[in-house]
Amino acid sequence: MAEDKQSSVPISSGAASSRIAPTPVNTPLNAAPISQGLSRPTVPDITEEETEVKGEDLINRLGGLNLRPTGIVEVLPAPVARRVEGLKGLHAEYCQVEHQLKREMLELEKKYLLKFTPIFERRKAILLGASEPTPEEVAAGEAVSAKDDPDGAAVAKQEREDAEKNLSAEDKAIKGIPNFWLTALRNHEGLSDLITEKDEEALAYLTDIRLVYLADTTPGFKLIFDFAPNPYFENEYLEKSYHYQDELGETGDYIYDRAVGSEIKWKEEKDLTKAVEIKKQRNKATNRTRLIRRSHTVPSFFNFFNPPAQPTREEIENGEVDDDLLEELDEKLELDYQIGEDLKERIIPRAIDYFTGKALEYDLEGIEDEDDYEDMDDDDYEEEI
Amino acid sequence: MAEDKQSSVPISSGAASSRIAPTPVNTPLNAAPISQGLSRPTVPDITEEETEVKGEDLINRLGGLNLRPTGIVEVLPAPVARRVEGLKGLHAEYCQVEHQLKREMLELEKKYLLKFTPIFERRKAILLGASEPTPEEVAAGEAVSAKDDPDGAAVAKQEREDAEKNLSAEDKAIKGIPNFWLTALRNHEGLSDLITEKDEEALAYLTDIRLVYLADTTPGFKLIFDFAPNPYFENEYLEKSYHYQDELGETGDYIYDRAVGSEIKWKEEKDLTKAVEIKKQRNKATNRTRLIRRSHTVPSFFNFFNPPAQPTREEIENGEVDDDLLEELDEKLELDYQIGEDLKERIIPRAIDYFTGKALEYDLEGIEDEDDYEDMDDDDYEEEI
Repeated sequence: MAEDKQSSVPISSGAASSRIAPTPVNTPLNAAPISQGLSRPTVPDITEEETEVKGEDLINRLGGLNLRPTGIVEVLPAPVARRVEGLKGLHAEYCQVEHQLKREMLELEKKYLLKFTPIFERRKAILLGASEPTPEEVAAGEAVSAKDDPDGAAVAKQEREDAEKNLSAEDKAIKGIPNFWLTALRNHEGLSDLITEKDEEALAYLTDIRLVYLADTTPGFKLIFDFAPNPYFENEYLEKSYHYQDELGETGDYIYDRAVGSEIKWKEEKDLTKAVEIKKQRNKATNRTRLIRRSHTVPSFFNFFNPPAQPTREEIENGEVDDDLLEELDEKLELDYQIGEDLKERIIPRAIDYFTGKALEYDLEGIEDEDDYEDMDDDDYEEEI
Repeated sequence: MAEDKQSSVPISSGAASSRIAPTPVNTPLNAAPISQGLSRPTVPDITEEETEVKGEDLINRLGGLNLRPTGIVEVLPAPVARRVEGLKGLHAEYCQVEHQLKREMLELEKKYLLKFTPIFERRKAILLGASEPTPEEVAAGEAVSAKDDPDGAAVAKQEREDAEKNLSAEDKAIKGIPNFWLTALRNHEGLSDLITEKDEEALAYLTDIRLVYLADTTPGFKLIFDFAPNPYFENEYLEKSYHYQDELGETGDYIYDRAVGSEIKWKEEKDLTKAVEIKKQRNKATNRTRLIRRSHTVPSFFNFFNPPAQPTREEIENGEVDDDLLEELDEKLELDYQIGEDLKERIIPRAIDYFTGKALEYDLEGIEDEDDYEDMDDDDYEEEI
């Protein structure tokens, strides 16, 4: 598909809908903690019109000054500055309790993953053809279809039932739902841009995508991609782990520390992440020619298992990393984290909606133009005095 | 401040950082459920280049077709279509378990609010001057300051301690931290645009912002703004409630149902949300003049307590609501929900960081240009064959 175009992945572009309630699995949309690794804190330079303010003029204006966090304390009267330090100490206490909350939430997610697993196992059995859906499962699915599109669902059901009375040998031979996961991934806006035409042939062997949490001592999660034996690589499964930092960020969220992927054992000449050119070179001294094999990385979904390494804090502080490179790396890392997150939170739980394309509807629902909001003075009325 | 400009509130503009880990309090950034009230589902029109695909050609191409969710089932062989319906039924089962998870998470949040409350009460006592911070609280705060800015914090501490040895009567008379909440709100990018110069005078009387959850039968939360007696309105507190729908959305998140605000009992001529013009009018028949009092809504933070009403599903389906109006309303509602969410999730817990301006740093950290990502073929190398 996208082999020859730039992999610009618009996953996090567009405004996210804020119609979603903030409890309990949301954080504010533009939360953005200062990550340890790539922190480049900026203090906004707020310009403010001169206004005549009565009362506590000094403090009123502080919001408009370009101050470091400690700066405000420097300009406050000493007793007030002392109270502000006290509130900072109190906030540190809040953060400790908040960290407990986040840990308990993670435990709750782990507990529920155990409840979800039998459902995912059943899904796998049906889509691989190891088992057929029960009449009850089909009826429950038809109820969902009827709710989404009453007329269409009725027609589809009728046509299917007619066809079932007279199945061809070919149709009878189909096992499960071929290309289920490939189709699901291709219906995710960001992932579809990463999947090349060649990748599709390998991804046709994908039999399951599973989520597991990392051991209790390291917060984070792992995605496991199970593959049937295939002509591309030896691995039975490919893994991608996302590790969080132990400390929460300033906004009280877990912060990504690093991502680690499986090494893919490509079969000979089958590496989808590399292209090989063969060139002739002539030695000027001896006039002998030789063949040069030039191998370079090409876009491929399978680069997902070889994520960019995050530079260490020391490397950044010692200026060993170029600023432009750092920014580029930052973008790649965010993209990588976003894709991992989408797989965990959306694609694994809602794979059927990605397969049918229904997820495209609710994914796109929230992407809208960022028009400025209009002000609200629209209910004028008159009264006589 | 912003009285004379359009209140374009950029709360959800800009890309949110995806450095935040998805567990357990995040959902994917562009999740966007189809809300009951204002649903305008769109099916994306994906154009796809012609490619020659081997194998399960039909199914491979489904992702590129412009199909309704039930549409894919219509073109699948009957046995496969049946399995797909089965998976939909299985997914309905998943959604039920997921709903339990969301309810348990909400309960966990409620449990922790009880743990946070004494910390918030202590904060209130300090900022209103009812109590002074303990030396331990100040020391803990200084440790935070020193971590954020080692040099600046040391200087600030020294200056404060010097000043404390010789306090003026004026400084001694200051109670608590004047204008704490006003300053905190003004340091929130979205709210500062809503707060007019006149609002500031009223918001100087704001003594606390508190969060409570709604009763168990109605999921949602309430924000309570406590005010000292003031020349503007009679209310001792103003409330804003956010109600969620009972059903989760397609993405498994709670969906806002409606927001309800307190009626503000404005003192005479003190309504900050209305401007009054007095005009002369002449009656053409009698030639008598009369004075017309023309009152119109003006931008004000206090409009927050009079949120736009969401049209009912029936009104929309009967075409009683103009499309443009609907879109405008949709934007206003999203803005209103976003502000409620920011107050709940960020400003109430981290008020001290908004007061000092530290929150501006981590708020802005995630807002960056939406440059296209570059592809990853940057590690060329050569080998001789």
